[in-house]
Amino acid sequence: MSKTKGFFIVLEGPDKCGKSTQAALLTRALINAKCKAIHTREPGGASVAFAEKIRELVLDPDNIVHPLSELFLYEAARVQHVEELIRPAIEQGAIVVCERYTLATLVYQGHARGLDPALVKRLNAIATNGLKPHLTLLLDIPETQFKLRDPGRNLDRLEQETSKFRKRVRDGYRLAAKSEPHIELIDGTGPKFSVHRQIISQVAKLTRIDVTPVPLEPNLIKSS
Amino acid sequence: MSKTKGFFIVLEGPDKCGKSTQAALLTRALINAKCKAIHTREPGGASVAFAEKIRELVLDPDNIVHPLSELFLYEAARVQHVEELIRPAIEQGAIVVCERYTLATLVYQGHARGLDPALVKRLNAIATNGLKPHLTLLLDIPETQFKLRDPGRNLDRLEQETSKFRKRVRDGYRLAAKSEPHIELIDGTGPKFSVHRQIISQVAKLTRIDVTPVPLEPNLIKSS
Repeated sequence: MSKTKGFFIVLEGPDKCGKSTQAALLTRALINAKCKAIHTREPGGASVAFAEKIRELVLDPDNIVHPLSELFLYEAARVQHVEELIRPAIEQGAIVVCERYTLATLVYQGHARGLDPALVKRLNAIATNGLKPHLTLLLDIPETQFKLRDPGRNLDRLEQETSKFRKRVRDGYRLAAKSEPHIELIDGTGPKFSVHRQIISQVAKLTRIDVTPVPLEPNLIKSS
Repeated sequence: MSKTKGFFIVLEGPDKCGKSTQAALLTRALINAKCKAIHTREPGGASVAFAEKIRELVLDPDNIVHPLSELFLYEAARVQHVEELIRPAIEQGAIVVCERYTLATLVYQGHARGLDPALVKRLNAIATNGLKPHLTLLLDIPETQFKLRDPGRNLDRLEQETSKFRKRVRDGYRLAAKSEPHIELIDGTGPKFSVHRQIISQVAKLTRIDVTPVPLEPNLIKSS
């Protein structure tokens, strides 16, 4: 098998911005284009059992968690995720599509929880051993969208935060998009297929791979 | 209630050095001397539910844990333990007797696992927000004692390490006793009551409290 260049693409954004849907669509489009693509997410990570156990702990609404303890837990899960899955996959030429990464920690634990952003960045750098995404796609939605989207679902500990917290999250993301490199802001309120097309276009530009958008189910295409 | 000065006393040493027994005896002696004394231990912490959940995760022999992830988990549990229990107790004038603390992390994750000691110290300082013990009592036993003591007990993930690992732990502790301040080395191979008396003597010197050793059960006294 010829050795191809791996890529690390991160989808970011506030809760319910559509990360999971879009990451799944992107992964499918990449696989259709004959790429080896892996869909994973933080905290935790597909197939990384120990990181998933940390995820359960940190998101369980029954737990009372100190912000700094929360930060250390995210980094603990990240180490395991990076070393067990992300780094080896990229080295083997895969395209890793990951929901959330270091930027989420900077925004949630730094900007929204109020921990020192310099500290968050320092721990992010230690936990990842310097592994940065080639591209971060930020799906931006206003805080008011949170209650409208998927209202029946059980909320985890972070999703149960106040709307004030969610506003800080959104502001933190928008601020980061201006100051951090390799972040592309995408309007997450647009129709699903339109968001997907924008993501595909950014990924094609980065990877130089001829990726075609995945046709959505008829009712979804109609709604776009 | 008059406000008395709190103290933070840590018992350290390799697995099966007698920390738990000695911490329990010391706590009983302090309570007999009319002190408010609290016995706790790391990882985890008496009555700190979330830290105990992290303890379960990190010590479970079924988990495969990257050394750096392990370090972050110890620090996550420590934050919760310090902020929820240790710091408030000391501020309220209690004497906190804790099995293991930052020195254990320096020795196990630094010296024995091979993580950069400077990194371990940096994370220790962040997690504790600078809270240091007034006194650390190191119960020193040779590695060969490990198999002789309490051989029927189920071993946790760290206790299941190799004898080479345990030798590095012991060496790390002895090295630290020479270079770090406020560490008193005690021969942990001595009879239980003799070790207890030495600990009481150190604690009395520190606290200026008139503490009397707890009489051990007759058979234990005879064996000393």
